[in-house]
Amino acid sequence: MAKASPQVKLPSPIKVLTKMLNKEVVARLKGGVAVKGVLTAYDGCMNLVLDNAAELDKSGEPLTRYGRIVVRGSQVIYISAVEVAP
Amino acid sequence: MAKASPQVKLPSPIKVLTKMLNKEVVARLKGGVAVKGVLTAYDGCMNLVLDNAAELDKSGEPLTRYGRIVVRGSQVIYISAVEVAP
Amino acid sequence: MAKASPQVKLPSPIKVLTKMLNKEVVARLKGGVAVKGVLTAYDGCMNLVLDNAAELDKSGEPLTRYGRIVVRGSQVIYISAVEVAP
Amino acid sequence: MAKASPQVKLPSPIKVLTKMLNKEVVARLKGGVAVKGVLTAYDGCMNLVLDNAAELDKSGEPLTRYGRIVVRGSQVIYISAVEVAP
Amino acid sequence: MAKASPQVKLPSPIKVLTKMLNKEVVARLKGGVAVKGVLTAYDGCMNLVLDNAAELDKSGEPLTRYGRIVVRGSQVIYISAVEVAP
Amino acid sequence: MAKASPQVKLPSPIKVLTKMLNKEVVARLKGGVAVKGVLTAYDGCMNLVLDNAAELDKSGEPLTRYGRIVVRGSQVIYISAVEVAP
Amino acid sequence: MAKASPQVKLPSPIKVLTKMLNKEVVARLKGGVAVKGVLTAYDGCMNLVLDNAAELDKSGEPLTRYGRIVVRGSQVIYISAVEVAP
Repeated sequence: MAKASPQVKLPSPIKVLTKMLNKEVVARLKGGVAVKGVLTAYDGCMNLVLDNAAELDKSGEPLTRYGRIVVRGSQVIYISAVEVAP
Repeated sequence: MAKASPQVKLPSPIKVLTKMLNKEVVARLKGGVAVKGVLTAYDGCMNLVLDNAAELDKSGEPLTRYGRIVVRGSQVIYISAVEVAP
Repeated sequence: MAKASPQVKLPSPIKVLTKMLNKEVVARLKGGVAVKGVLTAYDGCMNLVLDNAAELDKSGEPLTRYGRIVVRGSQVIYISAVEVAP
Repeated sequence: MAKASPQVKLPSPIKVLTKMLNKEVVARLKGGVAVKGVLTAYDGCMNLVLDNAAELDKSGEPLTRYGRIVVRGSQVIYISAVEVAP
Repeated sequence: MAKASPQVKLPSPIKVLTKMLNKEVVARLKGGVAVKGVLTAYDGCMNLVLDNAAELDKSGEPLTRYGRIVVRGSQVIYISAVEVAP
Repeated sequence: MAKASPQVKLPSPIKVLTKMLNKEVVARLKGGVAVKGVLTAYDGCMNLVLDNAAELDKSGEPLTRYGRIVVRGSQVIYISAVEVAP
Repeated sequence: MAKASPQVKLPSPIKVLTKMLNKEVVARLKGGVAVKGVLTAYDGCMNLVLDNAAELDKSGEPLTRYGRIVVRGSQVIYISAVEVAP
């Protein structure tokens, strides 16, 4: 049904977060919450530290600003780099 | 009630994701969220990396575009290849 | 209050899925999602691979068709064979 | 506040399911779903196999009939024998 | 801020359930479900067996009666003895 | 961004519950449920035993009174001492 | 797609909480609950102890005041320092 893919060594999704370090990211969290900030630390559970952070409203505008937030990995739906990588 | 199936060796559902690598996939996530993008990495928890990604609205149209997203496996409901396999 | 049942060796519920292999199944998932397709693989977490799959609407009609979907076991409520066993 | 109970050896709740084998049971599941059927297998996670099964509507009437369903234990709220034990 | 409590040996909350054995209890479960019945077995996960059981409506009145139900511990919010202990 | 904190030995949050023993506490639980009672036992999962307990309505008034309740730790959002510590 | 980041040793997100000790923090919890207080203890599960605590309403104003609350880590969405770090 699909051709066998060559068994290249894949990067781990968690390690891909390394490329987002010190960049502004948006994280979609459970409970309809979204936050934005500069990713300064993470771990294997996807716990995140975001600096210059803000919680966003539905249209993506900052709702509440924070110096720094620690996000619990179990609440993360997805994390994205804000800018399209060149 | 049903005839015994021959005990063929089944591929693991996680390994089947290999065949979706470098293809566009749609992932249905918890909280009514759906995302689309090219699957470039995954792991055994179904953590996913999607490139040229977008969050989709209810009708499947792109709502927000991202260069790359990392999706937490625990939030995945299902993943599908966009195109029907030939 | 009830007579002791003879201690027959029960089949494991996971193994019963073997009898649904290569048959069309419906899977009820969390978040009000239901999918249909031919079961081609599963594992002990109830991760499933469905071919010729479709997401169903409330009345059970196909809403979106997919060549193949990988369903995360933790999201499954129940799985059923579509046809009544003879 | 209460007199000490004699330390009788209790049956495990999981083992009590043995007494429901080959009887019709109702299982209340997460997400407002209820199913009915003859319990033909279960395991220590409360994964269940129900034969001659049906999903029930709010008033307990059959909504969709299935030959056999496999229910994921983690979605079970409670299981009951339909008939009152004599 | 508070005086140090003497380090008395506390009973385990699970063991406290022993004192509710063979008494009528109410269990509040997830999903807005409440059940009532005589507690005849439990285990360390708070899986419960209730005899002469009933699901209760919002005002605490019996909605559906069952001979016996097995409740999955992971769905329990709290369990209480119906009568105030003397 | 912040000065390094001296690495004082912190009390474990679970151990802090010791200071609430034999005092009236309020526990906010999942599903919009709140309960009140005298904390007489707890364990490392935050399973709680509350005596002279009551479930509270939205305004904090007792809705249903119980002699004793056992609360499942996994359902606890937070626990607080009712009175402000002097 | 992105230049390799130098493999600097990252602080663990949990350890970053140390910098919030004895400061006022806001914690967003599941179920739409938010609390505020001085962080006096935490552990590796993100269980938190907040002193001079309050539950907040939607606009961030104190709704109910408590001397001390113990928050269950599994319910935490994110924790933030109230003041912007200088």
